[in-house]
Amino acid sequence: MRQIFEDELNELHVRFSEMGMMVNEAIYKSVRAFIDHDKNLAREVIESDKQINKREVDLEQRSFEMIALQQPVTSDLRMIVTVMKASSDLERMGDHAVSIGKSTIRVKGNRRVPAIEKDIADMAEVVKKMGEAILDAYVKEDETRALEIANIDREIDRYSDKIYKACVQETQHDPSTVVGNMDYLLVASYLERIGDYVTNICEWIVYLKTGKIVELNTNLNETL
Amino acid sequence: MRQIFEDELNELHVRFSEMGMMVNEAIYKSVRAFIDHDKNLAREVIESDKQINKREVDLEQRSFEMIALQQPVTSDLRMIVTVMKASSDLERMGDHAVSIGKSTIRVKGNRRVPAIEKDIADMAEVVKKMGEAILDAYVKEDETRALEIANIDREIDRYSDKIYKACVQETQHDPSTVVGNMDYLLVASYLERIGDYVTNICEWIVYLKTGKIVELNTNLNETL
Repeated sequence: MRQIFEDELNELHVRFSEMGMMVNEAIYKSVRAFIDHDKNLAREVIESDKQINKREVDLEQRSFEMIALQQPVTSDLRMIVTVMKASSDLERMGDHAVSIGKSTIRVKGNRRVPAIEKDIADMAEVVKKMGEAILDAYVKEDETRALEIANIDREIDRYSDKIYKACVQETQHDPSTVVGNMDYLLVASYLERIGDYVTNICEWIVYLKTGKIVELNTNLNETL
Repeated sequence: MRQIFEDELNELHVRFSEMGMMVNEAIYKSVRAFIDHDKNLAREVIESDKQINKREVDLEQRSFEMIALQQPVTSDLRMIVTVMKASSDLERMGDHAVSIGKSTIRVKGNRRVPAIEKDIADMAEVVKKMGEAILDAYVKEDETRALEIANIDREIDRYSDKIYKACVQETQHDPSTVVGNMDYLLVASYLERIGDYVTNICEWIVYLKTGKIVELNTNLNETL
């Protein structure tokens, strides 16, 4: 009985990590599509979100059945609850990749601002780094690492601030860039939200190790 | 034993509903603050978010303990899991009210566009209607109503679309309104996200009644 449970728990971890990788890939591709004005890649991201959503439903169901049928001890229950909660965060991150994909499709050959696009690409790099690090911290149940990762969110907030100001300035300077600048602003806000979701997952890793529900970063200083 | 469990479950429902009311109030106040340029009210919304976050932590802990200590039967477990998941959605809705509050504080006497502010106020009315209806549907475990509420999200998407276009047009027409228009755009995007979270809660109510995890609205048509 215990062996079956261990196997199921292991399978749950693997499937959660896989979902994380699917989401990270979607985010990465969505930003690449946006920067490269690659509508086909954007459509691919939107399409792949179905798989991510399916995976979340699968994780929900497995988690629920494990709790209902096996009545796990507290420490195991905590792991299952973590997967249950953190998979929602992953799913929402995927939704934001879709939003970036949709921004890409909407853009209709407007004038581009290379400096802002560079900042968005750099911001996305930081988000990617966070997204990869969090899966590693999850697998290793490393709450110290999780706390470090949550701190990277401040870096993301600084990019938001910079991009917001640049978009305002650029539009004032040349009003014909307004459509593009509004998209830049929205994409930066999606990336910032993704950073918030990663921070949520950091909180779940701390919970997994300590049993304490903490709140990291209160987001009072962010721009978008 | 059963009576204690029933009491705890009832208390959980009450606390969840209260959290929902706190969140709805925060959203309502944040939009009023934004429209009225009332920075004090905006600060009040930001401050009140701490209580909302505390309430979420409280619901998490109660839910977890009920599962761990009482090993509920499947139908009860489903209720507890619903609270666990839906309280995250409520908490995120509160975060977006905070974002609207921060937009209000950021605005520095820029030129206003009454027509767009009217649309934002109307959009917020629809969001408020959704937010109130969902709490009612939750208490009554009314999945038919939940499905109807999820449909209102399309109305919100139409407002997003309208506001996005108006912001672009207004900025092109008068570039000095850019800062205000970007804030309008962001506030509309927060309201749209809030609608998405309500839709998530609709999904949880359907799950509560049917045990099936459904996905309502795929958001492929939304603008922001």
